[in-house]
Amino acid sequence: MKKFVNDPKDYVPQMLKGIELANPDTLRYVPEYNLIMRADAPRHDKVSIVQGSGSGHEPAHVMSVGKGMLDGACPGDVFAAPPSDYVYETAKLLASDKGVLLLVNNYTGDKMAFEMAQELAEADGISARTLFIDDDVAVQDSTYTVGRRGVAGNFFVMKAVGAAAEAGADLDEVVRIGEKVNSVTRTLGIALTACTPPAKGAPLFELGDDEIEIGVGIHGEPGRRRAKIMSADAIVDEFLGAVVPDLPYSSGDDVALMINGLGGTPLSELYLLYGIAHEKLAAQGINVRRSYVGEYCTSLEMAGASLTLVKLDDEITKLLEAPAEIAIRVF
Amino acid sequence: MKKFVNDPKDYVPQMLKGIELANPDTLRYVPEYNLIMRADAPRHDKVSIVQGSGSGHEPAHVMSVGKGMLDGACPGDVFAAPPSDYVYETAKLLASDKGVLLLVNNYTGDKMAFEMAQELAEADGISARTLFIDDDVAVQDSTYTVGRRGVAGNFFVMKAVGAAAEAGADLDEVVRIGEKVNSVTRTLGIALTACTPPAKGAPLFELGDDEIEIGVGIHGEPGRRRAKIMSADAIVDEFLGAVVPDLPYSSGDDVALMINGLGGTPLSELYLLYGIAHEKLAAQGINVRRSYVGEYCTSLEMAGASLTLVKLDDEITKLLEAPAEIAIRVF
Repeated sequence: MKKFVNDPKDYVPQMLKGIELANPDTLRYVPEYNLIMRADAPRHDKVSIVQGSGSGHEPAHVMSVGKGMLDGACPGDVFAAPPSDYVYETAKLLASDKGVLLLVNNYTGDKMAFEMAQELAEADGISARTLFIDDDVAVQDSTYTVGRRGVAGNFFVMKAVGAAAEAGADLDEVVRIGEKVNSVTRTLGIALTACTPPAKGAPLFELGDDEIEIGVGIHGEPGRRRAKIMSADAIVDEFLGAVVPDLPYSSGDDVALMINGLGGTPLSELYLLYGIAHEKLAAQGINVRRSYVGEYCTSLEMAGASLTLVKLDDEITKLLEAPAEIAIRVF
Repeated sequence: MKKFVNDPKDYVPQMLKGIELANPDTLRYVPEYNLIMRADAPRHDKVSIVQGSGSGHEPAHVMSVGKGMLDGACPGDVFAAPPSDYVYETAKLLASDKGVLLLVNNYTGDKMAFEMAQELAEADGISARTLFIDDDVAVQDSTYTVGRRGVAGNFFVMKAVGAAAEAGADLDEVVRIGEKVNSVTRTLGIALTACTPPAKGAPLFELGDDEIEIGVGIHGEPGRRRAKIMSADAIVDEFLGAVVPDLPYSSGDDVALMINGLGGTPLSELYLLYGIAHEKLAAQGINVRRSYVGEYCTSLEMAGASLTLVKLDDEITKLLEAPAEIAIRVF
């Protein structure tokens, strides 16, 4: 294993410490719960937004904390759900007078941790709700899920509920918006390589030198099928062939298009895929109004990408356009 | 080779098309010269800033075009200098009444192309200057250079001259600022893996399963030495041991600290390195005032990172703080 790491058990804490040190004015690190939180949270004039899930998906979710996005993220270890008491303590610490929304990518471990935390928080009189994200069209049930998995599309849910909360929406309204965005968001992922969790020290699965996994999950879990490596044009056809008919997205629709890197794929390839997808959508009469190219939800250093579509209306567009400030900055 | 690519000869053009499609309001793609330019360039109230170099280093430089940064970037093919006529035509197209500054990472091929283009532009009566960036402390001369190489530190030069130009500085002043920032910027890179140019289809060099290259260039060219993989703490000691004494950076100095990913290394590892470097610098009395963590100058999908320090004063800090808008956006 060649990684920048000390003792693998310090991988997550040392990453979190780095995030805090890089954002001294805006973020705080609470080691007891693996928590990265806004320095000004909780703000009692807004609903607090919290997300967890395993580590190894950065910038989701610890680098997505900030004004207009998450108030806090309390991940577990690499590819492991956070313990429910991390989530419970985080909910208690961050809940505002307007309540707290717990966002959960639909994986069984995360679901259990967050539902238990919500119950405990509610028993303490905290107004808490849970919202599950399940944008992955690849498979119905999966290695770690009942129902569909939540993957890179969770960015759009975070962004929309973050903006709504910042604008003062109450908890019911924030939940309504999150469910609405999730309901019009669809993703498919394709892996070119496996990835190596630091504590395991070996690749999570085997993929031949000329093989790709179509519909891969963000922990390397199987998708729809293995295939031989194909051209970028054919890859985009795989993406769109799975995603477009699923909602479906139709001629005349306005959409946001995200090409998300899974960790080991360079920006050049992501923009190449983006351009092809944009034009193929245009040829179907589907109008790309907002573009997202880069890393939003990764699987450590896995080479690969996912494609996400979001059907836009005025309400969603406005929420996606709203300013936000997070750990990942260009300047 | 497993990459998202069609015919390798279309790799760069299809990436550039993707950049344009993702930024329809702000950027324009001119296929004849591999040029990505601001849609509003040239603006005659400011010096124009142009950079080229090979492709495969994205977001440098084609995704660094935008308000407050570059007016245009005209790269060559992957790891190849742009033809001098691309640079010349770009200089003619983008030169404003206040002139044009050509930024060049110090590699022999790029130097030749840009110097010839500058001569041709000047013969046309265009006020053109060339500024060489050579922040890499690893080696004095190298496979493709006389003198030191220009690597990730070029981001700070782009950012500073971009801000100065936007504020209306004249060409002499912009050059002065660029030279000043270059003179206080130092970088070292470490590779964990090689990378595979699409047209070659095979790794550029061989690195053992437990080996790393200390002082690697951004085209995989050799650095100072091969070593066995070591802990992140030891890696940071290698970075700082090379970079800090070179300027030198001293106790009491204010610096910007960049941990730049070389393409295949996930954000989690970059933040882990960042945190360790920040604390080790603090222990030396060197104050990190600005932080940059992510991909700024890559080598395709190479796993690895570089560390850059910039010594800050009020003038440089203000230029780095100035707003800018480029292709790589979070929202």
